[in-house]
Amino acid sequence: MRNIKLILSYDGTDFFGWQRQKEFRSVQQELEEVVAKLNGGKEVACIGCSRTDAGVHAVGQVVSFRCNINLAPDRFLYALNGNLPKDVVVRSVEDVDDNFNANRFAKRKLYRYVIHDHKLPDVFLRKYSWHYPYCKLDDVIMNKAAECLLGTHDFRCFETEWPNRKTSVRTITHLKLNRAGQYLWLDIEADGFLYNMVRSITGTLVNIGRGYWPVEQMKQILDNGDRAQAGPTSPAQGLFLMRITY
Amino acid sequence: MRNIKLILSYDGTDFFGWQRQKEFRSVQQELEEVVAKLNGGKEVACIGCSRTDAGVHAVGQVVSFRCNINLAPDRFLYALNGNLPKDVVVRSVEDVDDNFNANRFAKRKLYRYVIHDHKLPDVFLRKYSWHYPYCKLDDVIMNKAAECLLGTHDFRCFETEWPNRKTSVRTITHLKLNRAGQYLWLDIEADGFLYNMVRSITGTLVNIGRGYWPVEQMKQILDNGDRAQAGPTSPAQGLFLMRITY
Repeated sequence: MRNIKLILSYDGTDFFGWQRQKEFRSVQQELEEVVAKLNGGKEVACIGCSRTDAGVHAVGQVVSFRCNINLAPDRFLYALNGNLPKDVVVRSVEDVDDNFNANRFAKRKLYRYVIHDHKLPDVFLRKYSWHYPYCKLDDVIMNKAAECLLGTHDFRCFETEWPNRKTSVRTITHLKLNRAGQYLWLDIEADGFLYNMVRSITGTLVNIGRGYWPVEQMKQILDNGDRAQAGPTSPAQGLFLMRITY
Repeated sequence: MRNIKLILSYDGTDFFGWQRQKEFRSVQQELEEVVAKLNGGKEVACIGCSRTDAGVHAVGQVVSFRCNINLAPDRFLYALNGNLPKDVVVRSVEDVDDNFNANRFAKRKLYRYVIHDHKLPDVFLRKYSWHYPYCKLDDVIMNKAAECLLGTHDFRCFETEWPNRKTSVRTITHLKLNRAGQYLWLDIEADGFLYNMVRSITGTLVNIGRGYWPVEQMKQILDNGDRAQAGPTSPAQGLFLMRITY
């Protein structure tokens, strides 16, 4: 049996997230239906690395599954894309070691969060950014505030529905806010993320960038470990799963 | 009575073009309904500079209309945007001379056509570009071929449904194809455009860029003045009305 690794890109707008749900459209369901079709009708469980939420996009989601489909990787890629809906694209197909599992062996994940801080909306990026019309955000201050998050910490203050895991300790290896004109994007890479972690870090940074909280508040929030003290969860449509490293 | 000039941006995906039609959703209709609402229910005819086709986008459409709405330009802008659907955004509102007419006094229009010549589609730009998966297009050759179009010529070879105007002579003042990675965009500015002119120029350039026709064919097509000799009309979703100069 083959063990297949896919890199998948999707526009999350019309999906209720990655994970299969009974009554709602999910990326997993769309993919599994196409794989089953190529697999002679036999169902195949596709394991996604990250359970992206409703509205969240992916540039580089990683998926693995076992099957007996007899197609070379190039043909496999075209067969998948030819059958998938237009808001999902397989970027690569690769045969991998039998023990590879997209979810279990991820070393680092890189997410990007896009903010548009102009007073008027952008019709072309309204589904791919958080429109923040109230004021210009101070990205220098926000980067300064974000510094204390780098490294290994207990991030329970940025977890929705805590405590639902064994540990809320994670290691952030990269965190940088960039600006180009009216757009800001926060790149954040870690060995793993808690539920809504990127979106609540973003909400907290925005409270600092708009001058509502001082720079030092970030450290206090982190130290206090209380979700209620952190900023709001920013909207799903600004978030992109960019890359997963194994 | 006030004479108002708007700059309008819209995502053309879900519109059957600018112009009002009985059974289909148009930008003009959406805008006129909102303006009428602000005008105490009294209908107002909005004049658009360019009748963009179904699926064509606008970054800078210009619209003019007369009304008695008593709102300062800034408030007017917010009132319009607060009532318009999310795929239309008014970028500016300005009081103009009584004789201004968005359609009649345009000196130059700038269009952009975006092509994505990668073998795989891009889920995020699929509605905002022409996906050309067959081969890499030679943008150097295409720019060379485009040179002969600059200046004043009879462009009937690039007009769908010719002859439907008094003259098919137009002056192209700027024409340049640019590339960034997998994306090409053709910027083309003229004193006016014939029906489907940008899209048939693009289709012709692509036939040259993919090596199907030699560079010199462009000049021959222009000289022969026969639409049947030019390339196909490229798809609507790659086209953007960028800017109008008065």
